[in-house]
Amino acid sequence: MNWYKDTLTIQTRGKGLYDFTQDVANRLSKWGVQEGMCYLFLQHTSASLVMSENWDPTARQDLEAFMEHLVPEDQRWYRHTLEGSDDSPSHMRAMLTLPSLTIPIDDGHLSLGTWQGIYLFEHRARGHTRQVLIRCLSMD
Amino acid sequence: MNWYKDTLTIQTRGKGLYDFTQDVANRLSKWGVQEGMCYLFLQHTSASLVMSENWDPTARQDLEAFMEHLVPEDQRWYRHTLEGSDDSPSHMRAMLTLPSLTIPIDDGHLSLGTWQGIYLFEHRARGHTRQVLIRCLSMD
Amino acid sequence: MNWYKDTLTIQTRGKGLYDFTQDVANRLSKWGVQEGMCYLFLQHTSASLVMSENWDPTARQDLEAFMEHLVPEDQRWYRHTLEGSDDSPSHMRAMLTLPSLTIPIDDGHLSLGTWQGIYLFEHRARGHTRQVLIRCLSMD
Repeated sequence: MNWYKDTLTIQTRGKGLYDFTQDVANRLSKWGVQEGMCYLFLQHTSASLVMSENWDPTARQDLEAFMEHLVPEDQRWYRHTLEGSDDSPSHMRAMLTLPSLTIPIDDGHLSLGTWQGIYLFEHRARGHTRQVLIRCLSMD
Repeated sequence: MNWYKDTLTIQTRGKGLYDFTQDVANRLSKWGVQEGMCYLFLQHTSASLVMSENWDPTARQDLEAFMEHLVPEDQRWYRHTLEGSDDSPSHMRAMLTLPSLTIPIDDGHLSLGTWQGIYLFEHRARGHTRQVLIRCLSMD
Repeated sequence: MNWYKDTLTIQTRGKGLYDFTQDVANRLSKWGVQEGMCYLFLQHTSASLVMSENWDPTARQDLEAFMEHLVPEDQRWYRHTLEGSDDSPSHMRAMLTLPSLTIPIDDGHLSLGTWQGIYLFEHRARGHTRQVLIRCLSMD
């Protein structure tokens, strides 16, 4: 058994879904892990992790638009507005998605489905530098 | 320490929650795992995993109806409609629920609460064959 | 490699977010774990786990108010109302948040972001005694 760790830095340019599947895959290749589990953990509360379709760009666009409908900005009952109208909604959107992901590794690859991609969902209007911790428990 | 792996195949008959707790429990029994962690990972983006009440069928029916209200089909702003009106909503519903689950194993059993069941939530109108990867890290 | 386990008991006083980050940190300190993974699992279907901002109390208040808006009580189509008007909504709210959390441990501490706290979200109107299983895989 072996244990590997690193931090992925993802630079966002404001709201939206950012595919970082390849960054994760590259770390596993570098480490040469054949079999085990990959853990991802996002150290932020105004962004989140999402696993979704990576083929048709309109699927991603619909997910982004959906979040604007489901968690609208500028509700008059919001109290946490210190950093702007996207502040409280960003925590709500993060709460409805994921801070962590756990993915099996087989035969040297992440065992994703054919159309699955790993995304960081930025919920703030401005770009941010986001840290995703990657840990790998190898059975090799 | 030991490592076990398998794939559970779940045949759905269209939208709804499918309890597969017993399938997971059967694998653990077969392997004879006494203590450790069980990891479940769904290889699809139009279905998801849910942990919910398994006693009163009306709880399940309300969860299914709730998803139809929360993420309605046929919104005129949907762009990802290639495969029908249930296409984009299925990814949205998956995004609000789970791709992976991590459950402790104690004394040879999943350490679920009294009323907890493990469900696959099918979000497509038609039935699909779904793959859930099961991995088990045993401390025995 | 080592394996540690315990159960955290959290007494709630009705609906709301309860920060139990320190309870988790205390267990890790007691065990002296330097590096590995911490797994949390909630054994209930009418409460859930949430990772969110722990600095400004209004952020927490907005998350609580948001859930009341997103999943309202007293919808006439609810069928699971045996235990009151907060019964079915509690399962819906749990479904949209988390039953389990997986957090890296580094240098003897949970690797949380600066503003991240670990919360139990109670969805029932009355207080409950909630059990969170904590498991720790140590690489020391």
